[in-house]
Parts: sequence; structure tokens; C-alpha cells
Amino acid sequence: MPRINGERLLGDLRRIADFGRYQTGVHRPHLSPQDVESRHWLAGRMKEAGLEPVIDGVGTVLGRSPKSGPRILVGSHSDTQPRAGWLDGVMGVIYGLEVARALAEDPETAHLAVDVASWADEEGHWGQMVGSRSFVGLLSEEDIDKARHRDEGTRMRDALKAAGLEKAPRLHLEDGKYRGYLEAHIEQGGVLEATDKRIGIVTAIVGIFQFRLSFSGIQNHAGTTPMPIRKDAGAAMMRLYNKVMETFPALAGPRSVWTVGKMSIEPGAPAIIPGKAEMILQFRDADVAILKKFETALLEIVDAHNKRGPCKVECVNLSRTLPTVMDDRFLDAIEDAAATHAAEKHMRMPSGAGHDAQILGLKLPAAMMFVPSIGGISHHFTENTADADIVLGCQVFADAAAKILKGN
Amino acid sequence: MPRINGERLLGDLRRIADFGRYQTGVHRPHLSPQDVESRHWLAGRMKEAGLEPVIDGVGTVLGRSPKSGPRILVGSHSDTQPRAGWLDGVMGVIYGLEVARALAEDPETAHLAVDVASWADEEGHWGQMVGSRSFVGLLSEEDIDKARHRDEGTRMRDALKAAGLEKAPRLHLEDGKYRGYLEAHIEQGGVLEATDKRIGIVTAIVGIFQFRLSFSGIQNHAGTTPMPIRKDAGAAMMRLYNKVMETFPALAGPRSVWTVGKMSIEPGAPAIIPGKAEMILQFRDADVAILKKFETALLEIVDAHNKRGPCKVECVNLSRTLPTVMDDRFLDAIEDAAATHAAEKHMRMPSGAGHDAQILGLKLPAAMMFVPSIGGISHHFTENTADADIVLGCQVFADAAAKILKGN
Repeated sequence: MPRINGERLLGDLRRIADFGRYQTGVHRPHLSPQDVESRHWLAGRMKEAGLEPVIDGVGTVLGRSPKSGPRILVGSHSDTQPRAGWLDGVMGVIYGLEVARALAEDPETAHLAVDVASWADEEGHWGQMVGSRSFVGLLSEEDIDKARHRDEGTRMRDALKAAGLEKAPRLHLEDGKYRGYLEAHIEQGGVLEATDKRIGIVTAIVGIFQFRLSFSGIQNHAGTTPMPIRKDAGAAMMRLYNKVMETFPALAGPRSVWTVGKMSIEPGAPAIIPGKAEMILQFRDADVAILKKFETALLEIVDAHNKRGPCKVECVNLSRTLPTVMDDRFLDAIEDAAATHAAEKHMRMPSGAGHDAQILGLKLPAAMMFVPSIGGISHHFTENTADADIVLGCQVFADAAAKILKGN
Repeated sequence: MPRINGERLLGDLRRIADFGRYQTGVHRPHLSPQDVESRHWLAGRMKEAGLEPVIDGVGTVLGRSPKSGPRILVGSHSDTQPRAGWLDGVMGVIYGLEVARALAEDPETAHLAVDVASWADEEGHWGQMVGSRSFVGLLSEEDIDKARHRDEGTRMRDALKAAGLEKAPRLHLEDGKYRGYLEAHIEQGGVLEATDKRIGIVTAIVGIFQFRLSFSGIQNHAGTTPMPIRKDAGAAMMRLYNKVMETFPALAGPRSVWTVGKMSIEPGAPAIIPGKAEMILQFRDADVAILKKFETALLEIVDAHNKRGPCKVECVNLSRTLPTVMDDRFLDAIEDAAATHAAEKHMRMPSGAGHDAQILGLKLPAAMMFVPSIGGISHHFTENTADADIVLGCQVFADAAAKILKGN
């Protein structure tokens, strides 16, 4: 079995964290100057590892193996959230690079082909998982024409031009080329740490249903409008949210989550009764039956509130991403490798966060592996994972890749 | 008794609505170019009415009667909220002007002195009731030095300079000069309309207690953080607000009101558990005992939530304005006049909104009178009052002023 080089792995991870370093983390949103620079550095490291790198028309870096044996695709993303961590998700990209190197160095696995990808914009500054969606044929030229930076409003076409990529062709998945797709990532949660495990074997990526709830009341003076005749949109929102919080636990599975992360009221002055209010509710589960139960309950709550009044509630579905189930044989391969290198320290678990693997998983057998996040922290510059866990994870991952490539 | 001139009154009201006209309303924030222009026009109309006008160092326009008889101060404000109504509060200023003219035209009342004021910035673009507070000695030079526009952040000193008022002295109330202060205003609520009344006799201006509630949780990933370990500041805010809405009705008087007009969560992204949340709760009543009951209940709710966790709640008092009780003899005078001109169509009521009368009422006997707001609408350009109600109200107000000035 191949032996990964822990020092080389950590060295590459530390080196790429120089691009956009922010305190103990990294600020490297897709197509920022630091991101573009890091992609060229990454392409250089791929070349040194014997891969043939290209940067495609949306910014995805793909290092292709010149070998002719069974072929696997390994990757993740190297763009980051604003002022975020140094491992999310570049660790999975550098794992891919190290797996390619380790397999090439072992005579037993030297004939096996490992292609390594850093998918563009997994963090969604310009769209949703732009690189992997483009690769599997779910992104049109019109989508790119329309794409604007979520915070700055600039055009993606302009950013691609500034990055020198306006003429670069987009890469597309060729039928039958790969045995499958593997992705490693930090957990971004605290389950592994809390249960003293070092490897998470991802059984499924949760589905996410997301709804916008808009409340229409009547804006009025907070001093002169008696309570009985008010139509306070903010109060209506609070009532409905509370009902959701009361109702959902009884319907939930052990890992269901539901969140209101965004809410606002208008006009938002202390002495004015809110005339409008809005909140975004999302829920996630690996079991689509639970997602459907939540949706039914939500619609019943909305209905009851509309019957009761006094404010009108409108409920609009924003997205329904179905759970993506990982490939059983790949999970077994990861589990076997984990049993060898981290006996009793591995567990199967769903991923609560979205990942490129859910896009690749639409077209290829796919699997994911997690390593622990210290304190469960993610999307923050203090995000971290113990060096020993990073190295261990990569060894497990390399064994699993070799096993998959060597299988019949 | 004096006879007001309804056409002259309505004509002046329509003319001053030209300054900053916005759709069917007016946009005339204090010290905006339109506001400054309107103050010069108003001073001109005061002069034509035989008053001696000055515009003082914060922008208050005061028209002083040259007469030596018993003297009363009548006024309101002519600045407006953004894109607001044509009557709030300039109607009370023009009422004052019309009362001065009507009394001067009637030989029986021609010796009586009516001073007319348009107080600066009642709507609080630069501070709180800047003009009336300055007049009674509650505003220092340092307060003005520090005052900035609430939306634009510009300095009040710069705006005063642009208005040509940087050298104008500030006016101050002289002890013993006035029998009292009278103010008329639109109701800004729907009580008069709903009960088919035309005159509201304001018994008290409600007190307002205002609190900022800040919730500290832990910001985290909405997909990877299990429900049991979350510290969701938004959910905590919703729970506390709901508790307030459940608890307050049992403590309330018939006209108590409580409002959350402002709330926010951070960072405000659909997939991030809010780490911070904040809301402003205010409550109003003419009875200070009820205000105190509400405050006690609020503090108990905060305490219970802090004991229960998981988020810390901090409750900071922002203001406690006590109710201002109006002068009984003045109320009787308004009621007598209402009985003459609008028999059965008048009622006593508190004012749920703040007014300059609550500041003048600290130093002088004071009273207020309301006319109906169509549909209860205020702080919006569609605010209106029937012409007949405007005219009737002014006649009642003039009679009351004459009665107060002639009384012993």
C-alpha cells in the first residue's frame, strides 16, 4: 500500500495558506487576486507531481494523470469563505495531490491514474458550486453571463477576464473515464471530536430545503395604534417562528437541523410598527422523508397563521436539494483503510454541509471522508485540525483510493 | 368669542405644503433647504398677522405678540418625518397663527397676546425635540456641538451655518411670561374616527420606556452543528419576544401599547446560526404604575432566560420618559369649547405619541387637542384630515385659548 509523506503534505498546506493569509486563517474568495495566484501555484505543484494541469474557463484547476491505468478523480476546493479557515476545503485538494504522489512512488500502485481537481467557487461567491456544476454539465454560458459577486455585485465575466481566463475552455466530464470521485474535508462540526473519533466516513450529504417566509402587516405609529387593531408583521413572524421551534423536534431525526439565519423587519425603527417582515428557514437531513415531513408541517403552520391573521404570510420555496447517497463500495474501502490506521476511531456519519461531492455524485460513484475540526469551528479563521489528524486522514484516504483503483 | 377664518387657515396650510411637497405629502426634515425656506415664509406670515417673528439659534420660529394683555404660547412643529404627511405637526403651528389673527380681529379679545411657535426638529433628525428642549433650558451648547443627522451623519452646526443661523441667539422661556402652552395636532391614530368623534382632549402624553435586548450565542454552521449544542441568538430572541407577548396583556391598561420595531441578527446569512441578535422593545402608557409593572415583568423574563440559557441576554434601558399630565383647567376650557361647536363629538384621551407639549408641560400649564386622522394614518404621505375637521378644530382651539386668556 502507498505511504503518504506527512511533511510534504503539511508543507503544501502551509504554503498555500500564504495566499490570502488572514490572522490564523485565509481570505481567498474565488477569483480574488490571491485565489488566482494560488491556482497558478497549485498548477505548478501538480506539474512537479507528474500531472498535466489546466485552469479552465471558470477557474477549476484539474491536474490530469498521463497514466493509462484505472483512473479516479480526487478533489475539493481551494477558494474560501471571507476571513475563513486554512483547511476548508484546500485540505481535500492537497490530499488529492499527495495521493497522486504517493501512488506514483509505490511500484505496486504506480500505474494507477489519479486526477486531482480544485473546483471553482465551492463557497458560492458567484453561484452555487460553479466549478463542479460546470464540470458535470449543469452550468450554461448564460449562467456565467448573469453571475455576479454576491457581495460586490461585480460580473463574473469581468473577474474571469481579470484572471486571464476569458478564453480558457471549460472542462467537462467524459463518460466512463473515472471509476469514481473521492473527496476529503474537515468535518466543520463537533461530532468526531465529541465522540473521540478521527475519521468520519460520510454516508450521505444532507438535502437542504429552504423557504422564504414573508409577512405583510400594516406599518403604523407605535404610540397611537391600539394593540387590538395592529397588524404587526414582526410579531407575526415571531409567532410563526416560535411555532416552528415547537413543532419540528417531534418530527426530527437524530441529526435533523433547522435554522433561521436571516430575518428582517421594515422599516426597522423603534417607534414604528413593522409593516413587513421576512425570514429564511432552512432544514437539512440525509433522509428525504424527514425533509418532506418538515415541509408539510411548515405549510400547515403557514396555513393556520393565514387563517388566524391578522398578517398575511407568504411561503416561497427557494430550493430543495435532495440528499446525495455515497457509494457503498467506496465507503467500505474507506472503512477498511480506517480500520487499518485508526482502529475503533472511525464512524459513519452524514455530512450536514454541502460539498462538490454532491454534484459529482450525480454522475459518478462518489464518497467523502472527514477529519475532526477542533472545537467544531468552521467558516472562521480559528478553524483548525490537529496535524496528526491531517496526516492520518491522508494515509487512510490514499489507501482507500488505491483499494478502489485496484478493485475489479 | 373670536371667529376663525377657515379659508385663510386652509390656504396657509396648503401654501406651506409647497415647501418640500412629496406626492400628496411633504418631505421637510429640519434644516433641509425646504424646511429653512418654509421657516422664512412662516416668519413672513407671522409679521403680516402683527406678530414679531424671530428664527432662533436652533431654527425655532417664534412670533411674539406686541400686546401687553395676558399672554399664551401656542405652537407645534413644521418640520416633518421623511416623505410624511402635510399636517403633522404644521397644522398646530398654523392653528396658532390663525388663533392670533382671530383674537386680534375680535374687539373682545384684541388685547390678548398670543405668541406662536414652530419648534425646531420635533421629529428628531438631530436630537430629541431640540427646539422645545432648547427653549426650556434642557439643551446645552455641547449637545448642539455633538448633534449629528440621524441618517446622514452630518453635523448640526454645519446645517445651522448653511441655514444662516450660526450667529442667531437661542430663545429661552422667561419665568411668569405665559399663562400656559397650547398645542393642537392630528391624532395620528384611529380612535377618534372609530368612535365617530371630531375633537380629542388630551389628558396626558404617555410615558415611554425603551430597552435594548442583546442576545449572545455562538455563530456556527447551520448544517454541521447539532440542535442540542446550538447557541442560536436569533432563536433566543424569538423566545423572549414571545414571552413578552404572552405576559404583557395581563398587565396592560386599556391603552397600553408595546412594540418591537427594530430587530436584527448577525451575521444574517441563511446557512449560519446567528451568533448575535438585538431588539428594541418600547412600551407606552399614561399611567406610570403600568410602565413600572411592564419593566418589572420584562426584567423577570430576562432573568428567567438567563437562568435557562443557552444564550446570554443583556437588557439595557435606553430611556424612561415619564407621562406628562395636562392642565385640568385648560382641559375644561377645551371641553367647553368643544361642547359648543361639536356637541357629543368630543372625548378625553391620552396621546400615545410624544409632542413638544410634554417638554413645555415641564415648565408651564399645558394642554393639547387632537383632530381625527383619516384611517389613523401618520408618518406617511397619505396622512390626511377632513377640511371640515381642520376648520372645526381651529375654532374650538381659538375659543379655548380666548377662554384661558380671559379667565382669572
